[in-house]
Amino acid sequence: MEHLLKVLEDFKSEKISTQKALELITLHNSVDLGFANVDIHRNKRNGFSEVIYGAGKTPEQVRDIAIQIYEYSDQVLITRITDAHAVEVQKIFPQAIHHKVAHCITIVKKERIKYPNPIAVLCAGTSDIPVAEEAAITADIMGNDVLRIYDIGVAGIHRLFSNLGKIRKAAVLIVVAGMEGALPSVVAGLVSHPVIAVPTSIGYGANFGGISALLGMLNSCGSGITVVNIDNGFGAAYAASQINSLCNNKIE
Amino acid sequence: MEHLLKVLEDFKSEKISTQKALELITLHNSVDLGFANVDIHRNKRNGFSEVIYGAGKTPEQVRDIAIQIYEYSDQVLITRITDAHAVEVQKIFPQAIHHKVAHCITIVKKERIKYPNPIAVLCAGTSDIPVAEEAAITADIMGNDVLRIYDIGVAGIHRLFSNLGKIRKAAVLIVVAGMEGALPSVVAGLVSHPVIAVPTSIGYGANFGGISALLGMLNSCGSGITVVNIDNGFGAAYAASQINSLCNNKIE
Amino acid sequence: MEHLLKVLEDFKSEKISTQKALELITLHNSVDLGFANVDIHRNKRNGFSEVIYGAGKTPEQVRDIAIQIYEYSDQVLITRITDAHAVEVQKIFPQAIHHKVAHCITIVKKERIKYPNPIAVLCAGTSDIPVAEEAAITADIMGNDVLRIYDIGVAGIHRLFSNLGKIRKAAVLIVVAGMEGALPSVVAGLVSHPVIAVPTSIGYGANFGGISALLGMLNSCGSGITVVNIDNGFGAAYAASQINSLCNNKIE
Amino acid sequence: MEHLLKVLEDFKSEKISTQKALELITLHNSVDLGFANVDIHRNKRNGFSEVIYGAGKTPEQVRDIAIQIYEYSDQVLITRITDAHAVEVQKIFPQAIHHKVAHCITIVKKERIKYPNPIAVLCAGTSDIPVAEEAAITADIMGNDVLRIYDIGVAGIHRLFSNLGKIRKAAVLIVVAGMEGALPSVVAGLVSHPVIAVPTSIGYGANFGGISALLGMLNSCGSGITVVNIDNGFGAAYAASQINSLCNNKIE
Amino acid sequence: MEHLLKVLEDFKSEKISTQKALELITLHNSVDLGFANVDIHRNKRNGFSEVIYGAGKTPEQVRDIAIQIYEYSDQVLITRITDAHAVEVQKIFPQAIHHKVAHCITIVKKERIKYPNPIAVLCAGTSDIPVAEEAAITADIMGNDVLRIYDIGVAGIHRLFSNLGKIRKAAVLIVVAGMEGALPSVVAGLVSHPVIAVPTSIGYGANFGGISALLGMLNSCGSGITVVNIDNGFGAAYAASQINSLCNNKIE
Amino acid sequence: MEHLLKVLEDFKSEKISTQKALELITLHNSVDLGFANVDIHRNKRNGFSEVIYGAGKTPEQVRDIAIQIYEYSDQVLITRITDAHAVEVQKIFPQAIHHKVAHCITIVKKERIKYPNPIAVLCAGTSDIPVAEEAAITADIMGNDVLRIYDIGVAGIHRLFSNLGKIRKAAVLIVVAGMEGALPSVVAGLVSHPVIAVPTSIGYGANFGGISALLGMLNSCGSGITVVNIDNGFGAAYAASQINSLCNNKIE
Amino acid sequence: MEHLLKVLEDFKSEKISTQKALELITLHNSVDLGFANVDIHRNKRNGFSEVIYGAGKTPEQVRDIAIQIYEYSDQVLITRITDAHAVEVQKIFPQAIHHKVAHCITIVKKERIKYPNPIAVLCAGTSDIPVAEEAAITADIMGNDVLRIYDIGVAGIHRLFSNLGKIRKAAVLIVVAGMEGALPSVVAGLVSHPVIAVPTSIGYGANFGGISALLGMLNSCGSGITVVNIDNGFGAAYAASQINSLCNNKIE
Amino acid sequence: MEHLLKVLEDFKSEKISTQKALELITLHNSVDLGFANVDIHRNKRNGFSEVIYGAGKTPEQVRDIAIQIYEYSDQVLITRITDAHAVEVQKIFPQAIHHKVAHCITIVKKERIKYPNPIAVLCAGTSDIPVAEEAAITADIMGNDVLRIYDIGVAGIHRLFSNLGKIRKAAVLIVVAGMEGALPSVVAGLVSHPVIAVPTSIGYGANFGGISALLGMLNSCGSGITVVNIDNGFGAAYAASQINSLCNNKIE
Repeated sequence: MEHLLKVLEDFKSEKISTQKALELITLHNSVDLGFANVDIHRNKRNGFSEVIYGAGKTPEQVRDIAIQIYEYSDQVLITRITDAHAVEVQKIFPQAIHHKVAHCITIVKKERIKYPNPIAVLCAGTSDIPVAEEAAITADIMGNDVLRIYDIGVAGIHRLFSNLGKIRKAAVLIVVAGMEGALPSVVAGLVSHPVIAVPTSIGYGANFGGISALLGMLNSCGSGITVVNIDNGFGAAYAASQINSLCNNKIE
Repeated sequence: MEHLLKVLEDFKSEKISTQKALELITLHNSVDLGFANVDIHRNKRNGFSEVIYGAGKTPEQVRDIAIQIYEYSDQVLITRITDAHAVEVQKIFPQAIHHKVAHCITIVKKERIKYPNPIAVLCAGTSDIPVAEEAAITADIMGNDVLRIYDIGVAGIHRLFSNLGKIRKAAVLIVVAGMEGALPSVVAGLVSHPVIAVPTSIGYGANFGGISALLGMLNSCGSGITVVNIDNGFGAAYAASQINSLCNNKIE
Repeated sequence: MEHLLKVLEDFKSEKISTQKALELITLHNSVDLGFANVDIHRNKRNGFSEVIYGAGKTPEQVRDIAIQIYEYSDQVLITRITDAHAVEVQKIFPQAIHHKVAHCITIVKKERIKYPNPIAVLCAGTSDIPVAEEAAITADIMGNDVLRIYDIGVAGIHRLFSNLGKIRKAAVLIVVAGMEGALPSVVAGLVSHPVIAVPTSIGYGANFGGISALLGMLNSCGSGITVVNIDNGFGAAYAASQINSLCNNKIE
Repeated sequence: MEHLLKVLEDFKSEKISTQKALELITLHNSVDLGFANVDIHRNKRNGFSEVIYGAGKTPEQVRDIAIQIYEYSDQVLITRITDAHAVEVQKIFPQAIHHKVAHCITIVKKERIKYPNPIAVLCAGTSDIPVAEEAAITADIMGNDVLRIYDIGVAGIHRLFSNLGKIRKAAVLIVVAGMEGALPSVVAGLVSHPVIAVPTSIGYGANFGGISALLGMLNSCGSGITVVNIDNGFGAAYAASQINSLCNNKIE
Repeated sequence: MEHLLKVLEDFKSEKISTQKALELITLHNSVDLGFANVDIHRNKRNGFSEVIYGAGKTPEQVRDIAIQIYEYSDQVLITRITDAHAVEVQKIFPQAIHHKVAHCITIVKKERIKYPNPIAVLCAGTSDIPVAEEAAITADIMGNDVLRIYDIGVAGIHRLFSNLGKIRKAAVLIVVAGMEGALPSVVAGLVSHPVIAVPTSIGYGANFGGISALLGMLNSCGSGITVVNIDNGFGAAYAASQINSLCNNKIE
Repeated sequence: MEHLLKVLEDFKSEKISTQKALELITLHNSVDLGFANVDIHRNKRNGFSEVIYGAGKTPEQVRDIAIQIYEYSDQVLITRITDAHAVEVQKIFPQAIHHKVAHCITIVKKERIKYPNPIAVLCAGTSDIPVAEEAAITADIMGNDVLRIYDIGVAGIHRLFSNLGKIRKAAVLIVVAGMEGALPSVVAGLVSHPVIAVPTSIGYGANFGGISALLGMLNSCGSGITVVNIDNGFGAAYAASQINSLCNNKIE
Repeated sequence: MEHLLKVLEDFKSEKISTQKALELITLHNSVDLGFANVDIHRNKRNGFSEVIYGAGKTPEQVRDIAIQIYEYSDQVLITRITDAHAVEVQKIFPQAIHHKVAHCITIVKKERIKYPNPIAVLCAGTSDIPVAEEAAITADIMGNDVLRIYDIGVAGIHRLFSNLGKIRKAAVLIVVAGMEGALPSVVAGLVSHPVIAVPTSIGYGANFGGISALLGMLNSCGSGITVVNIDNGFGAAYAASQINSLCNNKIE
Repeated sequence: MEHLLKVLEDFKSEKISTQKALELITLHNSVDLGFANVDIHRNKRNGFSEVIYGAGKTPEQVRDIAIQIYEYSDQVLITRITDAHAVEVQKIFPQAIHHKVAHCITIVKKERIKYPNPIAVLCAGTSDIPVAEEAAITADIMGNDVLRIYDIGVAGIHRLFSNLGKIRKAAVLIVVAGMEGALPSVVAGLVSHPVIAVPTSIGYGANFGGISALLGMLNSCGSGITVVNIDNGFGAAYAASQINSLCNNKIE
């Protein structure tokens, strides 16, 4: 609203032209690359610059969008990439880090100041680690300290209990699990902080590519659990970071 | 095979007629009521007489089948009944017990001798009790002592732990749960005896009438779990009793 | 961990008996009502006392659990109830409020101090209001100021824009929508605070009881959205309140 | 009816033979290639000659059908082709254009006169472009001017608003979107012209190969939206062109 | 855009206040009834005033929204109503017509001038008539002449052929069918005008509440078919009317 | 073709008028009742007159269609009716028989001569009898002797074997089963005649209204099984009768 | 029954030993290859020798089973094979024919005498031909003349009509179609002989690998249609041949 | 409980430190490899050491976990492996056996003493053998004699009957079947011992990767059947071995 108010006042006082006012009101804040409208305003609007989703884009498209975002932003995150994407991006940004397990690239101009509280990333099995790592890399670049606690599924629940002290230190918990997806329910019963559940497509047969874990999490009898899409480590970390940022920013 | 061998020998030695031999070979061991072929041989073949599934049968049909089975069997079990079925059956069998929560009727001519080891029936929430009771009634009439441990779902997992001693005494565990169906996974991780999981249709939304619990159980990362149909307390108890009976009977 | 440490020390110094130590270690913090194990420890462990899910329980069961929880807790929340439940509960607690649209009962001994920031509850259409109200009532009793913004679906998106100023004031946004469930995506693109999406079962045909909205929200291209079960207003508010509480409590 | 009437009259007045009359009445207007019955009458019946669906046909089959259609028609469109199909077709038709992004081939003997009003093709993300291009190529060859407006998904809804003027100029809008498929709802709320929604299979996890977008569009709360099959850019453009043609042809 | 331009100019020339300008820019064109934000601007934006979807609203809510819309609009359409809704609405609007088969109410202050070309509504079986009638009533009130052609399913395809002359006179065809939903494919193969297919939930067994018809229509091999939600006669007619209106209005 | 040829010749030789020729060519063989186009030509075209599907039709509609069909046909079959339909039909046709278990009405002016070979109708359980009876009544009125063999499911497979002699006498076998639908596989392995499998919606839980039986039958490892819709006893019998009729009619 | 009777008599009269009687009664008519129990009795029991399903078997396994069947049978049919299977089989049987389009092998020692009536195989599109050919090859080797009528889908329904004369000559019709699977409905409305519908997995998007065609066929409003599994050309032809054989064999 | 009691006593008598007591109480019985928490306590808790699930793990990860388990356990079982895993493991354990059909590795330090009763593994078709072998290998290494009875599906049911004598000797039956999954129903009707059903993903079309077999088994009308996940031969054998072990161990 203040944005609009300011535009109107500037316009009335003739600081800006009619054309300019129109443009500002319709928020023309994207850069058109032909194949993509890069949303350079998002950093301000959503708290983090546009993240590049690599799947289904050519290495050259990813590279060009990265160049555009890098200009306006201190950190660039690219998810769901292959080796070919990494090679192409590193030609322009030799400092880019290719996180192979997480299938991510990060380019950091300037690190963010870390929030005072960490985010914990838990996963149930070894095979869930790629998704957990996508979450961890995302949380890290967005300014969060990350506690990684892996391979603690409910089949050997004592492994969870021996990590309880550590788990309770985190402001937000991201719990990654495939198969029956029971870990978030158990964790949510033991802590009072928000739990974001990430179903993975790990499993076979009646797992149906992650549906069993997804349904398990949506139907969890544990209160306070919210869920993201199957294998969506990025989305979970993005939400977790938004939550973590609440404690530091004065809400206007 | 011995059955066939005996028939052949009796036939050859003319103890039985050609007609009789044919009949015995084709195992004509059912009584035809017009609307039902009552399987009076099942007690011998499967270890328990035919159980009457009440749903979709009229009170009169259930009554007539019960009369037929009662003649050949010391115990009669009728599942999935309504009050109307119970009224009709009790006209003929005043001694019949109507288990209202479990929607079952039992008629006991002579109690079975109990197996030396109990079966435990666990359930996650209060709403799962009808299914758990169907299992408990079935296990009981088939000759098993039953340990009932109810409302111990994973959202408050300490309630499970405080019952661990009791749980470990059972030869077989029937674990009934709706929603995400996580309880069997946790239980199977803590005991070494067979766990039979029963998903229930308790829940709403993405529960889809028990699918979430069913998938959770089928995909359980806990070893040794087997699963029955949604709400099938009877089937779980039948299987549990077959397992429990193994320890007493010499396997030929 | 501190809890365990304390028990061990008390035990060593013989302040408590072996029996007591065992009991404390296995966390026997529930009250057994026969049909229910009331979890009286949850307030401490999860930040709010056990909430009673009324569906599938008799009015008498709900009443008895309410009595038990009321003893240990300043606020009691009962969800998914019918008029019969309300009548039964109000016999014992005349001060209980029956929220008819939300199908909830609240009993408040002492109000919680409100968190400094409000939670906003948005809904897309008039038919989504019952779910939105369940969320609003839950958020309120857990200590949150609630901003209700109803009937602002994407078919007339200007209704959303005219409420943007208000929406941006909330620490957390609960966005309730049926049909195609597009509202959370649009909202998440306009704010930087956490958005919890609640799909509703409102619609017909290929809506499939809320699946269309659920899938729409899980696949949202808007970053930072997490999702709860279909029609689960309570769960969304519980999670939102956990998030809102983070800003006030020192995380240990 | 007039067609039949004319045949009958010609037959009676012996302008045509019995054999001819039979043939005309049963509309024997296809050319049999052994593996295909090419429908050379469709141009007259449906307003555009038969379009060749390349998937599942060999390059040679596609080539032979193209030759047959080219004989009777001024424009040939081949969809869902691979490079091998293009190579084979260009041997015979060097003037054929291979639209690589759209996976189409067009062969134009004579351009159609353009309809007075354009069709707009909008898509939500970069990954939806192949489907959008299939629509654009189809609309173009059928005689429509095409306005391409790409990468304007609801996550950054201002990109849509800054194109509103352009969008409102089109007689028909084809809106292509994957993931949650929310874009058509928002667009339909802002314009009064027909909106044809095309769900794409872009996404992962609970997207289920385009089901989330398809269901979102079918359940759209925006009035006037009709939907085609997942990834069916061709079908959307065919329908859009039929609509656009209505304004130019006197309807008899 | 012109709207915005005008507001800016009026504001600059001080014809309107800052407050007014803000309000106009955010398009505050809805009337807030507490439970509903009536969208009184839609007539201008979408070509027809907001249609009231009765399902899930109380008779009183429907009545109050109708009053609000009637004030700004010459025609009011209410769909998916019960007898109780009709009674309540007719208390205020005695002239309201209750279309019992179509479950609709119409209130007409002033009839629209009819478009020059009719819309045809076809249905496959007698049981599909309620959905077909919802389409017919909607098309009629929006200013279209309607040709009703019912019970002409593909099992007796000659019934379709004997109506071909009539069918070809319509500018747009709405084809309603349940079961396998094959009628639109056959129709689209015989005409060159747009076909909008409406699957109905008529059938049983593997019909799955209309899914078989919906999938049949989405996968139609007939070109130019677009599809709406199961049983959505209203949506089909709304789209058909938008299409029909194109021939009369100069597209700006 | 001969039909067309004859019409053309009659027309040329002026035996019939232009109008008549048109009519005959478009096969205008239906009677229009307003709500239904009764297909009076079907007896000739398909070998049996149109069967009235009662579900979703009013008693009056069913009655009127029955009157129309009765005029042209010696047998009338009405399926899926309620008591109200029967009452209405019997007002006009006191000789109509109401088959209560099968939910059918039959009106027989003149019995068909029976085909030389019987059709067998088998069903797995008592609850499948209504569907089996719909098949049996249909087969009977279409001119087949029917062998009913009920309640012989695979759980007591000896009941099947003791009926093998009888089963092998039938020209066609209709096998009705719910739950896992295994009976047709077993039967098809034992006979060489066509087996038509009818899945029923009998069962609960993961039966999903007959899907388990339907899938079981479609995936049967037994050769020669074909399948009809869930609960479609009528369709199975119609197909069986068409098969049975082949042996008597000279195929032209 | 006669078989059993004979065994009993032979046994009593000591023509056969006890061991032999046992063996005959248990019908030990399979040859054990270790990995397979070849069912050499099936020719007698089911009217055709066991058909080898190649998918999931190694070339060597297929070869060995073929050798075994060839010994007892005049025709060998192997379906769902790859080139590697064909190469391996042709090493032993140089006379084996590899039907590449149909993915079948046939080995014919002695041709069957053809049944007096042909079977027609229709398919909707060019892409359905492999499935149609599997049906045609199967029907042929089982002793049927085959009429192939391909690419006559409902989008150009005149192509069907111009083949009606030919179609009506067949005793049984196999109708193969993908996409919406509408062809069998239309065909069944025009003929009085049995129609066996084969859905194919041809299509994309909401086709879901053939589900749309399968559901369309199961829900067909055309009477007398039975359905087989998706892509199961073999099964359709096997059933069609069983039907065709009925007219030639005296049914005992 | 005894475990806890002993820790408390040792702690009080100062045999162990506070630190040690804490550790023992939280059951810190896993070895952390970074990517995996190897559960070395499971042998004691569940009766068999942790089994390595190879899918989704690198050969090196599998090797390292194997080394860790081998240290504490006499038998090591690795399932779902590829040749690469086998090569890597055999570098360290040349005595490891690679079961190629079963996709398993076993490493045996010391054989277990066999239980007195065998487990039977039945499968319906040749293609089901890999799953059956996974079950057989698992049962064997866990200390069970295994009776393999393969390729005895219901299409030739006499093959089952001729093995009945053998089948009835087993304490537990594992029945593996794809397609319609009917074999367990038939088997359970003939024996009185527990039947564990394993659906396989063998089939095509409406098999849906094993769903048809899974649903068939869950809905089996045969009493006493329990089910595991699709293709889960390991899980079935694990459960069977737990059952078999009951007869030998005194249950405390």
